[in-house]
Amino acid sequence: MNDAPALTRDAFLGGRLQLWQPARGFRAGSDAVLVAAACPAVAGQSVLDLGCGVGAAMYCLAARIPGLSLTGVERDGATADLARRNGPADVVTGDIFDSLPTLKRSFDHVICNPPYFPAGAGSAAQDTSRETALRETEAGAVSLWAQAACRRVTMKGSVTFILRADRLADVLTPMAERLGGLIVLPIAGRAGTPANRVILQGRKGARAPLRLLPPFVLHEGAAHTGDRDSHTDAAQAVLRHAEALPLS
Amino acid sequence: MNDAPALTRDAFLGGRLQLWQPARGFRAGSDAVLVAAACPAVAGQSVLDLGCGVGAAMYCLAARIPGLSLTGVERDGATADLARRNGPADVVTGDIFDSLPTLKRSFDHVICNPPYFPAGAGSAAQDTSRETALRETEAGAVSLWAQAACRRVTMKGSVTFILRADRLADVLTPMAERLGGLIVLPIAGRAGTPANRVILQGRKGARAPLRLLPPFVLHEGAAHTGDRDSHTDAAQAVLRHAEALPLS
Repeated sequence: MNDAPALTRDAFLGGRLQLWQPARGFRAGSDAVLVAAACPAVAGQSVLDLGCGVGAAMYCLAARIPGLSLTGVERDGATADLARRNGPADVVTGDIFDSLPTLKRSFDHVICNPPYFPAGAGSAAQDTSRETALRETEAGAVSLWAQAACRRVTMKGSVTFILRADRLADVLTPMAERLGGLIVLPIAGRAGTPANRVILQGRKGARAPLRLLPPFVLHEGAAHTGDRDSHTDAAQAVLRHAEALPLS
Repeated sequence: MNDAPALTRDAFLGGRLQLWQPARGFRAGSDAVLVAAACPAVAGQSVLDLGCGVGAAMYCLAARIPGLSLTGVERDGATADLARRNGPADVVTGDIFDSLPTLKRSFDHVICNPPYFPAGAGSAAQDTSRETALRETEAGAVSLWAQAACRRVTMKGSVTFILRADRLADVLTPMAERLGGLIVLPIAGRAGTPANRVILQGRKGARAPLRLLPPFVLHEGAAHTGDRDSHTDAAQAVLRHAEALPLS
C-alpha cells in the first residue's frame, strides 16, 4: 500500500455525497456538480458519463435523482477503480473512442466534463487519420468528445457538457450539427464578468431554436470579499442543496 | 413620384444622425446602432458593411469615428439608392456572393447585420451547388454571409456581426474557423432574461482565446414598466450618445 497514491475523502453537495479521490492531480469540483445539476434525467433512465473520473458528476446526479442506471467510462485504470469504489455505477475502463462493448448501446442522457487535452493526447491505436489530426489540437479533441457523446444518446435524449468558456465554438458546432433545442448557459464567477465555464445542452431530434441564457453566477459581489467565498443563493441551491440547475 | 414608396426621415444616436428609410418593410433600428458601436475602427481605416440596407450601421459608425472610408453592399436597388442619399459611402448595388469589383479588395473592418433569410433566398445565378444547398436553410445562408465577411477582411482586421441569438452556432462556426480572438457578447432585453441578439467579433490572424462576455442589457427593470422603455445607462450611452460598445 505504500505505492498507492494518497487519497482524500471529500464531501460534495453539502455532505450528501462523499467521494474518494487522489490527494494530488485532477480533483473533482464544482464543474462536476454543475453538469450533473443540468442533466434532465428522471428516475429509471440511463445516463452515460464520458470521462467520468472518480464519478463525481454521475454520483451527484444519483444523489438528486433516484433509480438511475449509471455508466461511466474512464481511461485511467486507477481513477476508474476509485469510481467503482465511490458508488454503484457500471464503470468501464477504456478510451471513449475504442469499440467498448458498453458503448454499443444508447443512453437516455449523456453528461461530460471533458478533460483538458494536452496537444497530441489520446490513444492512437484505433484512430482514423482524421481523428489523429483532430486530436493534435485541444479544439479538435474536445469536438471529438462532443461527437462521441452525440452518437451515444437516444432519440429525445439529452447531451450536456460543461467546458471552459473559451472552448465554446469547438463543442457548439458538433452539437448543433447533431442535436436540436440547444441551450447555452454561461457560468460566471461574478456578475458582470466574462464566463469562465459554459454548459451546453441539446436533445437528439429536437427542433427548438438555440437559446442563449443569462449567466449563472457563482459568487456574490464584485470581488473576493474575504477568506471564504460567498456563493449566490442560486449557486448554493445547486452546490450545497443538490437542486437542479434549471436551463430555462 | 406617386409610385415611389413612402419614406420617413428618422433620427438615430440621439439626433446626431438622420436617415431616410421606407415607411414600411424592414426598418433599421438598434441592431444597426449596436453593431456599429462594437466595431473597433479608428480614423482613416476602411470599413465594409455587408448588406448595408439604407446605411444605418455604417453611418452610425461614421458619426462616432471621423475619416473612415465606407463601402456598403446592398442587393435591393431602391434600398441602395437610399443608402447613397443618406451619406457619403461608396454603395454598391449587388449580391455579396457575386464577383463585384468592389469586393475584390480587403477592408480593415467588416460589419454585418444580416437579413433574415427565408428558405431558398439568394440569387442562384452564380451559386456553386454547395452554396445553393446551404442557402436552402437560414442557418446555411447566414453561415455563408459570415464566410464572405471573413474573406474580405485584412490581417489583424475585425469582423463584427449582430444576429438573432438563436443563430449563434451558424455564425460562430465559420468565424472560429477563419478568425481568432473571438468575442461573444449576448444582448438581452432585460437583466436575467435570455439573449435575443448576440454580437460576434473576431480578428483575422489573432490568437487570443474566445471570450464569452456578460450580457449587454438594453432595458432597466424586470418588465415594461410604462409606456416608454427605460434604457439602461450603458444602452443610452450607445444608442443616444454614440459611444463605443466596449467588448471587454
